Amino acid sequence: MRVLILGAGAMGSAVGGFLADAGHEVTLVGRQSHMRAVEERGLFITGIWGERLVRRLTTRTTVSGLKAGAFDLILITVKSYNTAEAVRSIAPLVDENTLVCSYQNGLGNAELIAEAVGWERTVGARAIFGVRVLEPGSIEITVIANPTALGVYGPSAPADRVRAIVAAMEAAGLPTVYTDEIATVLWSKVAYNSALNPLSALLDVPYGALLDTDHTRRIMIEVVEELYAVAKAMAVPLRPAGADEYITLLFDELIPPTAAHYASMREDFVHRRRTEIDALNGAVCGYGEEYGVPCPTNTLLTRLVRAREHALGVW
Amino acid sequence: MRVLILGAGAMGSAVGGFLADAGHEVTLVGRQSHMRAVEERGLFITGIWGERLVRRLTTRTTVSGLKAGAFDLILITVKSYNTAEAVRSIAPLVDENTLVCSYQNGLGNAELIAEAVGWERTVGARAIFGVRVLEPGSIEITVIANPTALGVYGPSAPADRVRAIVAAMEAAGLPTVYTDEIATVLWSKVAYNSALNPLSALLDVPYGALLDTDHTRRIMIEVVEELYAVAKAMAVPLRPAGADEYITLLFDELIPPTAAHYASMREDFVHRRRTEIDALNGAVCGYGEEYGVPCPTNTLLTRLVRAREHALGVW
Repeated sequence: MRVLILGAGAMGSAVGGFLADAGHEVTLVGRQSHMRAVEERGLFITGIWGERLVRRLTTRTTVSGLKAGAFDLILITVKSYNTAEAVRSIAPLVDENTLVCSYQNGLGNAELIAEAVGWERTVGARAIFGVRVLEPGSIEITVIANPTALGVYGPSAPADRVRAIVAAMEAAGLPTVYTDEIATVLWSKVAYNSALNPLSALLDVPYGALLDTDHTRRIMIEVVEELYAVAKAMAVPLRPAGADEYITLLFDELIPPTAAHYASMREDFVHRRRTEIDALNGAVCGYGEEYGVPCPTNTLLTRLVRAREHALGVW
Repeated sequence: MRVLILGAGAMGSAVGGFLADAGHEVTLVGRQSHMRAVEERGLFITGIWGERLVRRLTTRTTVSGLKAGAFDLILITVKSYNTAEAVRSIAPLVDENTLVCSYQNGLGNAELIAEAVGWERTVGARAIFGVRVLEPGSIEITVIANPTALGVYGPSAPADRVRAIVAAMEAAGLPTVYTDEIATVLWSKVAYNSALNPLSALLDVPYGALLDTDHTRRIMIEVVEELYAVAKAMAVPLRPAGADEYITLLFDELIPPTAAHYASMREDFVHRRRTEIDALNGAVCGYGEEYGVPCPTNTLLTRLVRAREHALGVW
């Protein structure tokens, strides 16, 4: 497989590294410091899946000069707020055999890809593993909660080719499964992140503290109820099917094991980085507006996070 | 006039000090360290109204032992969240000639007083001056925006006696006016504080920064619109009469001169003190619930502030 990884930070480098090690032709596009280190010394991967040094990687800092049809698979691994720009940059590289996969958090990424290249070439992914850049050229895989799920949107997409990609990722050592309900899987992750991330970041507390008072419990309940109402209006089936069941799951099963964790959004505040709020609560309200579903709680949380970004000088 | 000041912190001590200096019989009830210092060395007042040392003050740390009818006027100057307890403690001191005045911020205080002693003995006040305790026994008056306004609720209250109290306060050097629309005046101050305080505290920004982005402007607009809708349902006339006019006033006239100020609520967070959110946005939602007016924005801000208090270990 000829694979282009666009936005090769921690996550993209991990996937690219494993695929390259398994014999695929992988090109990373990332920041100059990281790309130069990988070029010079290879990509060093450490963490829960052992140590390896991957030398078979092509590196670039831009896609300019690449030709249409040069890749079978383009993985978009940029932050959600850079998806639109990423899609514009890779659109000329896509021909009838190219698949483009959003390997990202949040909602709205697949739509941006599909607008540019069509749903028949668009692949969705839900990755739940933790990975970070230790220093340029070196990454650590810290945690994996579930296999990455890949899937397509609608019958026009080549599910068989995506199954082959899943098999190739599995064979490369990346736990990956095919799902025929990628939207459901992505929305579930968004429900979790939308309920927890803005509150953890704005209140500066770990997830577990959000269960401590009825004030934050009520806010999380409203976030989830609005999200479920929006998904219903959009005919996206969710799992569990009802907001009440999801809230029970969230409070009783999902939060307790991660009670001591803080949201990455809080880290974004600390480091004065832009957050992915627009692909989480912000996307929920955006769809809500489009489909006539009121989302006051998600709207206010989105505004507060954006205002905090502004106060921190992120914009 | 025989005056009891219940909750003689900075504000109560200032009023009590000026009244005592003008010859009234003033009893302060406050914290032991402050009361002991006043007892031993007198109350030292500094700041924009000059320096004075007031020795003619009686001090106490509790009202127990005081007799019904011992005071013509009881000023309640505790924080709003302590009003219920304060009212319980002074109720036995009230006879047919006693007036009880809420010299406090926020909504709901007069109702608590009236429940205990009747509207015919209840006086409202809106104070807009800044005062702080420098050390026990010593306070500084930092800023005065407007004369304090005193007024009564409804025709059963003795407006003439309240006018006499206003005259006594004026004569003592405390800029004070009588108002026949105390509810209107108090609600206007609450509109200002509800729009600015939670945002300044939660986002850790000065008031001026709240005008910088549409995110915070929109939140302030919603806070004010909900407050105006609630006041309308309660038949409390506001000035200006419409939410739109108030918002224009707020953005164009009220915020700019105080652009560099942070809310006292943010100071409460810094010092891990309980805030007065329940008498501001919290009171608005409380009335909203009672009168069937939805207040999602005020509700969420109230919840966030309470959750932050909880996270800071205030409760």
